[in-house]
Amino acid sequence: MNRPTIHTVLSPALLDLYDLAASIFVVIDVFRATSTIATALHNGASKVIPVSSVEECIALGKLETNAITAGERDGKVIPGLQYGNSPTEYPSAFINSKTLVLTTTNGTKLLHMAHKNRAEAIITGSFSNLSAVTDFLLEQNKPVILGCSGWKNLINLEDTLFAGAVVSRLKKTFDIPDDSSNMAQMLYENNQHDLISFAKTATHWHRLANYGLSADLEYCVTPDIANSLCIFRDGALRKY
Amino acid sequence: MNRPTIHTVLSPALLDLYDLAASIFVVIDVFRATSTIATALHNGASKVIPVSSVEECIALGKLETNAITAGERDGKVIPGLQYGNSPTEYPSAFINSKTLVLTTTNGTKLLHMAHKNRAEAIITGSFSNLSAVTDFLLEQNKPVILGCSGWKNLINLEDTLFAGAVVSRLKKTFDIPDDSSNMAQMLYENNQHDLISFAKTATHWHRLANYGLSADLEYCVTPDIANSLCIFRDGALRKY
Repeated sequence: MNRPTIHTVLSPALLDLYDLAASIFVVIDVFRATSTIATALHNGASKVIPVSSVEECIALGKLETNAITAGERDGKVIPGLQYGNSPTEYPSAFINSKTLVLTTTNGTKLLHMAHKNRAEAIITGSFSNLSAVTDFLLEQNKPVILGCSGWKNLINLEDTLFAGAVVSRLKKTFDIPDDSSNMAQMLYENNQHDLISFAKTATHWHRLANYGLSADLEYCVTPDIANSLCIFRDGALRKY
Repeated sequence: MNRPTIHTVLSPALLDLYDLAASIFVVIDVFRATSTIATALHNGASKVIPVSSVEECIALGKLETNAITAGERDGKVIPGLQYGNSPTEYPSAFINSKTLVLTTTNGTKLLHMAHKNRAEAIITGSFSNLSAVTDFLLEQNKPVILGCSGWKNLINLEDTLFAGAVVSRLKKTFDIPDDSSNMAQMLYENNQHDLISFAKTATHWHRLANYGLSADLEYCVTPDIANSLCIFRDGALRKY
């Protein structure tokens, strides 16, 4: 019986080692891009346009109807943009029917790389929409590549942990031919009963907590808090 | 109080993210290059010359006094060379006072990269000489970079596991500023009481066991079985 495979790419710098064609690619940027994207779409945003630069963000914000611009640097809204990268900024009453033009560094870069490398489909994942992601992957039953955004190509704990959560849920029906997926899965299974305490050991947690963002971080490791599937089509992420 | 740092590089493809100057670099290639190197030097080899190509191996084998050439591909001695890459081939009665010219792919490549990137010192590490490595690093008290050779730039379990063993022994007196080191350490500490069973989950174990090399692999995850420090100087690894 041919089972589809799962591979885990722990850093964007390793992406070229994998063949993305015919695979579903999951962009993972737990702190906080893919958590914010899930939240905005779950709460009714019509789409989220991920962009690499502040200039592009501002330009698209003017071009798109009913759009808002967002992005942070060092825990503060980037000058020239309107909102930040916190999921709590996007409740339904605010974001419903709006277009969110979001600039982030690591997650956006990886998404564009996956698109350029011709992944068959691209979705975003974080604990916020863990079940939506795994339900979709189980239903599609195609090869999966879990892409961790990391931090400037460095491997990070929180993205690896989420990849492990996905592997853990898929392992009964998928093949796991690489050590990265196995290691991520073990990391998750050893810590799944207290994700928040464990996530606090991440270097990124410390950096963001220093900006007063601890509540955000706890939100970002809470499973299924914004459980919608986010799929990339025609240059934007949309609710599936 | 300034404590030295430990960083772990899980794939040679990530090496450029790290500044090697002023650091002690540990080349890790558990299955089997750095286990074989530790064994040969522990058993009295005068030096081990790691080379990238078969041609270079043959040429140096003729040039050096009392030298033997060694290297494997797919579990067999490479045509033109004399011996393989199994630590059990190098007992004292055979290797004492000889020069071993060894060609391997992943470990040798990483060692040469570390040399080019001007690491202050380069040593090799595997479970075979775990205590010699950690004793040396504790004594030197300088920044440490643990370099996993992986497999054609893919991250592997056995090298990550050894990096975790080193971090676990050094963590009381070193700073661990990156998630890779922390994850490796957790992987090791969760499995340290049954390293052999755990190592059997590695993809590389399966590949090599299929060549009939299971006894080799068990040897390679046995701590301190050839407990000598191997340091790179003047183009060769020598017993410290």
